[in-house]
Amino acid sequence: MTAQAPVLALTCGEPAGIGPELLLMLAAEGVAGARPVAVGDPGLLAERAAALGLSVELVELSPGEAVPDATPGRLPVWPVALRTPSRPGVLARANADHVLETLDVAIRACREGHAAGMVTAPLHKGVIIEAGHAGFTGHTEYLRDACGVEEVVMMLATDAALHAERPGWAGGRSLRVALATTHLPLCRVADAITAEGLTRVLRILDGDLRRRFGIAAPRIAVCGLNPHAGEDGHLGREELEVITPTLAALRAEGLALDGPLPADTLFTPRHLEGVDAVLAMYHDQGLPVLKYAGFGRAANVTLGLPLVRTSVDHGTALDLAGTGRADPGSLRVAVALAAEMAGRGPTQ
Amino acid sequence: MTAQAPVLALTCGEPAGIGPELLLMLAAEGVAGARPVAVGDPGLLAERAAALGLSVELVELSPGEAVPDATPGRLPVWPVALRTPSRPGVLARANADHVLETLDVAIRACREGHAAGMVTAPLHKGVIIEAGHAGFTGHTEYLRDACGVEEVVMMLATDAALHAERPGWAGGRSLRVALATTHLPLCRVADAITAEGLTRVLRILDGDLRRRFGIAAPRIAVCGLNPHAGEDGHLGREELEVITPTLAALRAEGLALDGPLPADTLFTPRHLEGVDAVLAMYHDQGLPVLKYAGFGRAANVTLGLPLVRTSVDHGTALDLAGTGRADPGSLRVAVALAAEMAGRGPTQ
Repeated sequence: MTAQAPVLALTCGEPAGIGPELLLMLAAEGVAGARPVAVGDPGLLAERAAALGLSVELVELSPGEAVPDATPGRLPVWPVALRTPSRPGVLARANADHVLETLDVAIRACREGHAAGMVTAPLHKGVIIEAGHAGFTGHTEYLRDACGVEEVVMMLATDAALHAERPGWAGGRSLRVALATTHLPLCRVADAITAEGLTRVLRILDGDLRRRFGIAAPRIAVCGLNPHAGEDGHLGREELEVITPTLAALRAEGLALDGPLPADTLFTPRHLEGVDAVLAMYHDQGLPVLKYAGFGRAANVTLGLPLVRTSVDHGTALDLAGTGRADPGSLRVAVALAAEMAGRGPTQ
Repeated sequence: MTAQAPVLALTCGEPAGIGPELLLMLAAEGVAGARPVAVGDPGLLAERAAALGLSVELVELSPGEAVPDATPGRLPVWPVALRTPSRPGVLARANADHVLETLDVAIRACREGHAAGMVTAPLHKGVIIEAGHAGFTGHTEYLRDACGVEEVVMMLATDAALHAERPGWAGGRSLRVALATTHLPLCRVADAITAEGLTRVLRILDGDLRRRFGIAAPRIAVCGLNPHAGEDGHLGREELEVITPTLAALRAEGLALDGPLPADTLFTPRHLEGVDAVLAMYHDQGLPVLKYAGFGRAANVTLGLPLVRTSVDHGTALDLAGTGRADPGSLRVAVALAAEMAGRGPTQ
């Protein structure tokens, strides 16, 4: 392949959190297969680099200007100015608009073709809401609305290399877990599982596994909602009434779907073999096992967008900010995943 | 230690399933640290051994008769006659009473001091219900009622040896996951989490970790009910209203409890370090990760009984019965766990 590595816009996230230093750590060690560009305040990055003793040359560019090949110790930056100075661990409402502006810059760069995808460091939802954005519920929904799509799907993926050591797991590939519902109180999950919702989610998942991950005929294993996948109706009827008929209808359209399977059976080598992604019905059915398997090397992917977006799978870790003890493992996986997806999919 | 290894009563479970052959496989390879006695039909065991080419000498004994030290290739049996001949994979309602009788024999042997604990191979709930035991809901409840206790706690544990290879996981020890609720439809879980119920479960868990596992000051990590443990009430209020106050009250009694923690954060090395058991709020929050971690080497423990009882973590696998392809890994762990517990706890 002679094509240049894809340009990825990496937003710094909450300036008082670990985001800026994770980007600097990654730049210091170097990145293969992508040309990352930080989206944030160059002064803040310079200050954090100096405080942590990281030798990183910052190169200010504008979206559209040529991005050089990645080199260890160099980080191109698309500047977005802080509204007020930021200290590690100390939130400032005045910077909420700064954080949102980094997202807008990255989204626009993707939409205009200046970046092949975006990777987001963690923001702090609470301070953005307190700053006056009452309806803000997170990166994913912000991106969905900014891109004008109705539904997106949250998927987490582990570093593929992890599983290469344990061939039984996911056939030596990345373990990928998508969610049918995301941040709902548990008591509202069962009612949120509908034929329409599942159909939309599975079509997005199947479609993006093809388009973004280059899988010609993706196979998806679907969890039941209830323990033992309802055990023929003894432990809940959603499998019989909603999930099984929905999967049957989608199989008739050509989707390759296993299940519904009991969640505690599905995550074993026998059932994961040959499976490209798992669809869990809700957050805590799928993510504990993904995070356990990922061991600090997992990342979040938003499917269904007209652009490539990945994210770290952790928060701002205000208590770690500025200490240099934060682990860039998830950011590394998020960048690798975005590069993988950007190398394949169309970016509008 | 000069004491003899503890006698363990191993019920054969459903005769048409893989239970009988798993016991024979284990006896053929030998067991260290316990003196297992099969509870089942000697003729059936002889037939299965012959069919699978397993060289196992069966020694018929009665409960109370001296049980010799375990030797590879020999299996003592406390005979319980089949009601009708059994073929692998073919359920027969007439044998439901045979299966229940094996449980009664094992329970009695434990209560009368002839066994230090019991290990159950899988039974088939459906055929027992169809045979006329309409109220039968499983081994655990049968044992609870037979022992006259009000509440028991289901806990799964992985083979400790698994984790010795990955020191970050559970500090190189067995991963143990207990459940606050077990076989409920998901829509009924939130209402089932009460201060009274959690208190009973945590007291049983804490007490049995001390008595049965010899842990002087057990530390238990408790999951929240909702994603992100409710995120300060934004994703559900059970943590604020029920779980957190209950844990506070129990801490005041001296229990060492972490949490409530987000389930997808808890199952990572940083949070598992030094933790003796995890309490998950419901089945699919805790068991997928346990089974993933256990990789076919996990077993089920019933806490809160006046006797030691462990079990395999899988079903009857009727399709595998008689093929010799069933894996005795879980039975091996169940026997090792029962021996560990029997070596410590009082048996009434």
